[in-house]
Amino acid sequence: MPAERGEGLPSTLTDLARAFRARRLSPVEVVETLLGRIEAEGKVLNAFITVTGERALEEAGRAEREILAGRYRGPLHGVPIGLKDLIYTEGVRTTMGSAFFEDYVPDYSAAVATKLQEAGTILVGKTNTHEFAYGPTGDRSHFGPTRNPHDTARISGGSSAGSAAAVAANLLYASLGSDTGGSVRIPAALCGVVGMKPTFGRVSKRGVFPLSWTLDHVGPLTRTVEDNALLLNALAGHDPKDPYSSRRPSEDFARELRRGVRGGAVGIPHDFYFEHVEDEVGERLWEAIEIFRALGAGVWEVGIPQLPETLKAQRLTLAADAYAIHEGRLRDEPERFDGEVRERLMDGERLRAYRYSKAQQRKLGAKDEFERALEAVDVLLTPTVPIAATPIDERKVNIGGYEESVRSAVTRLTGPTNLTGFPSLSVPCGFTASGLPVGVQLIGRPFDEATLYRFGHAYETAAAEARARH
Amino acid sequence: MPAERGEGLPSTLTDLARAFRARRLSPVEVVETLLGRIEAEGKVLNAFITVTGERALEEAGRAEREILAGRYRGPLHGVPIGLKDLIYTEGVRTTMGSAFFEDYVPDYSAAVATKLQEAGTILVGKTNTHEFAYGPTGDRSHFGPTRNPHDTARISGGSSAGSAAAVAANLLYASLGSDTGGSVRIPAALCGVVGMKPTFGRVSKRGVFPLSWTLDHVGPLTRTVEDNALLLNALAGHDPKDPYSSRRPSEDFARELRRGVRGGAVGIPHDFYFEHVEDEVGERLWEAIEIFRALGAGVWEVGIPQLPETLKAQRLTLAADAYAIHEGRLRDEPERFDGEVRERLMDGERLRAYRYSKAQQRKLGAKDEFERALEAVDVLLTPTVPIAATPIDERKVNIGGYEESVRSAVTRLTGPTNLTGFPSLSVPCGFTASGLPVGVQLIGRPFDEATLYRFGHAYETAAAEARARH
Repeated sequence: MPAERGEGLPSTLTDLARAFRARRLSPVEVVETLLGRIEAEGKVLNAFITVTGERALEEAGRAEREILAGRYRGPLHGVPIGLKDLIYTEGVRTTMGSAFFEDYVPDYSAAVATKLQEAGTILVGKTNTHEFAYGPTGDRSHFGPTRNPHDTARISGGSSAGSAAAVAANLLYASLGSDTGGSVRIPAALCGVVGMKPTFGRVSKRGVFPLSWTLDHVGPLTRTVEDNALLLNALAGHDPKDPYSSRRPSEDFARELRRGVRGGAVGIPHDFYFEHVEDEVGERLWEAIEIFRALGAGVWEVGIPQLPETLKAQRLTLAADAYAIHEGRLRDEPERFDGEVRERLMDGERLRAYRYSKAQQRKLGAKDEFERALEAVDVLLTPTVPIAATPIDERKVNIGGYEESVRSAVTRLTGPTNLTGFPSLSVPCGFTASGLPVGVQLIGRPFDEATLYRFGHAYETAAAEARARH
Repeated sequence: MPAERGEGLPSTLTDLARAFRARRLSPVEVVETLLGRIEAEGKVLNAFITVTGERALEEAGRAEREILAGRYRGPLHGVPIGLKDLIYTEGVRTTMGSAFFEDYVPDYSAAVATKLQEAGTILVGKTNTHEFAYGPTGDRSHFGPTRNPHDTARISGGSSAGSAAAVAANLLYASLGSDTGGSVRIPAALCGVVGMKPTFGRVSKRGVFPLSWTLDHVGPLTRTVEDNALLLNALAGHDPKDPYSSRRPSEDFARELRRGVRGGAVGIPHDFYFEHVEDEVGERLWEAIEIFRALGAGVWEVGIPQLPETLKAQRLTLAADAYAIHEGRLRDEPERFDGEVRERLMDGERLRAYRYSKAQQRKLGAKDEFERALEAVDVLLTPTVPIAATPIDERKVNIGGYEESVRSAVTRLTGPTNLTGFPSLSVPCGFTASGLPVGVQLIGRPFDEATLYRFGHAYETAAAEARARH
């Protein structure tokens, strides 16, 4: 499927937007093509829970008329997108990937859904999610597992499974996911797309079904870094109705994209982030580091203390919050959960409050430690996930003799910044020999997404040039 | 003892400051007089754990020289104060009221101690506290119970026991306490002084031994509202080294003191706050409400939903945080705790994490609810404590047929604003027939301490005039 990338249509959102603006292409045409692909490949991947074809065609028609009438709204106008199916959409079924909400149709839209609508995007469908977003593999949904476009026997990663798979398979130009322990970045890495977890508080969570109030983030998945910055431009900003929303005003996150990274500094937190990483993933990462060096950035080893404790605190907070959120359902209708999801939820029941309290202290410590590491460098560079996509339903993985659960392995490098709330971007970083994508994670200072995009774009461009040369 | 109030010395900090400024009085003279009183009455009340007499006399001498040389620092220059003995003082023993820290001498001072020193205050002593501040009665300290100046067989209230008793007995002009569930306001009410719990984040907690990271507040105790505002002027302001410190700049909290309350609005949250209140306390409160009416303020009944749940959430957070803080000591040397304090700490061990998580959600809800109540009125008016001071060691109280633990009774009306972080001021509100003080609590909007002081001052002045007329 990746071979078909872009066939017949511009391959990036940015190029699509250019074509729309120049009236070289019609949004209706694009939506029709995508709906055709979704009908074919989308079914195989199981990337969508609900396809809003009719509505999308209507919206595309409206966008077309507006653009023709000279009322061009900006680079997202007419762009077909998908929303993870825990983002509320007024009048469109929103299931959380769960039997509980199989027929649930919200009477209001999430703040992010409204923002994207106002920017002129076209909602093509609600994408598959690990049940209640509580799992990083994407293969436990009431609507079946999402499959990886690079190998349909393998997981897409999750929980924003369909959002990543659909963008990777050219079924959408962009999508939104949510990320509580890596749920945007993990499927982005495993499917080979760009995924951003913005700074905590940067993007409103109003109308997004929660998994953990203090760890949840909403973020975009796209094919390129530039596309991703355009999405964040539309999503960011204060929402007085979200108690966790920051007052930090939005900004143009694409403004520094082409400034390059010469003279910049990349920090490599070797311990923890580069331990127990599959050889091929490690190799791709070192190649990425070499590209940054070649681009004129300094590369420095940096130390971040207590990362294992930080990860534990993130996991404990998540488990307790998830249980708190699902307590009533677990008591009243436990059988409606997927068995694995239920078991994991129940693990949160017996955790002690004083440990939760200590985890919040660890959060403060971790913020300090990341802040200190980021004083000397612009970004931290790590693998997003230490392995490539595993077979669907497989639950153990052996990483060079180190046996670990798949769930633990894939969330281990993304989880810490859910606790700290620092922005983290996953950018495709080549493939394993068997053609599975690898992702590089860039971690930045709070509210400095622009720098992450600048480094991500410089790397992405240079890596593409290097591939073209070979 | 209250009969001696002010004998030979100005009765308020404001008057003392005026006398210093005019060079009508010498700080050395004042400190000598207070040290004499502390030696006599202070011993009876057991208000001090450590008296820093020598150091105080030295500092007084320095203040005197500075003032004579025209280097007057402001209204706190030369003013003798006390610090609750969990506020770190470099070179001066700081015990937390506990055997664990019996001989502990910190090598740095709390931010608030440094600020008061820079303002020119003179540290006269470290005041007695309920062990580790974990109790509102003030009668469980490794150094013995603090006694109420109005009846030495009764509790001072706590945990800032000595800070309240010493100010009430004219042994100090001001003191600092800490307040996690009412620990400044409760002893202020029971001893008949003014106690402020400022907005969460307003005053740095660096160097103050914690009881609960998210509920602790540091605040001043004084004899008058104006004196209290002068203290807060010196204490408030951002501290980059306290992760909970707000960036809100300090301001002149006394600026509106004399503006009056005509046209203002006082909200009475009748349910919850006026339930199970001793008759005599209730009567004093209604007299206070009448005074506000006479001053031209509107008085409105307001509803605040879910207060019992808010209180429960505050108590659960407190219990879990306190256990987290003392876990090591409870494991290694449980016998060094007071038995009652240890038992209460151990109650925190088994609480569940998901309940802690839910308590943090309740906090958000409660903030909303208080904010909404404070949209229509300037301040909320409630009793500070539903009863007057109980006998030392008594653990049950009967309030008009409603039996309750003393601990629960005295913290029940103060605890909710520890969860929300809203500023709350306790002002003396007359006496019971047996001469025990009653306190009225004013609750304000976040960071609007100036309004609390304005209403408190107007009431205090009118109440004094009313008493003078009778």
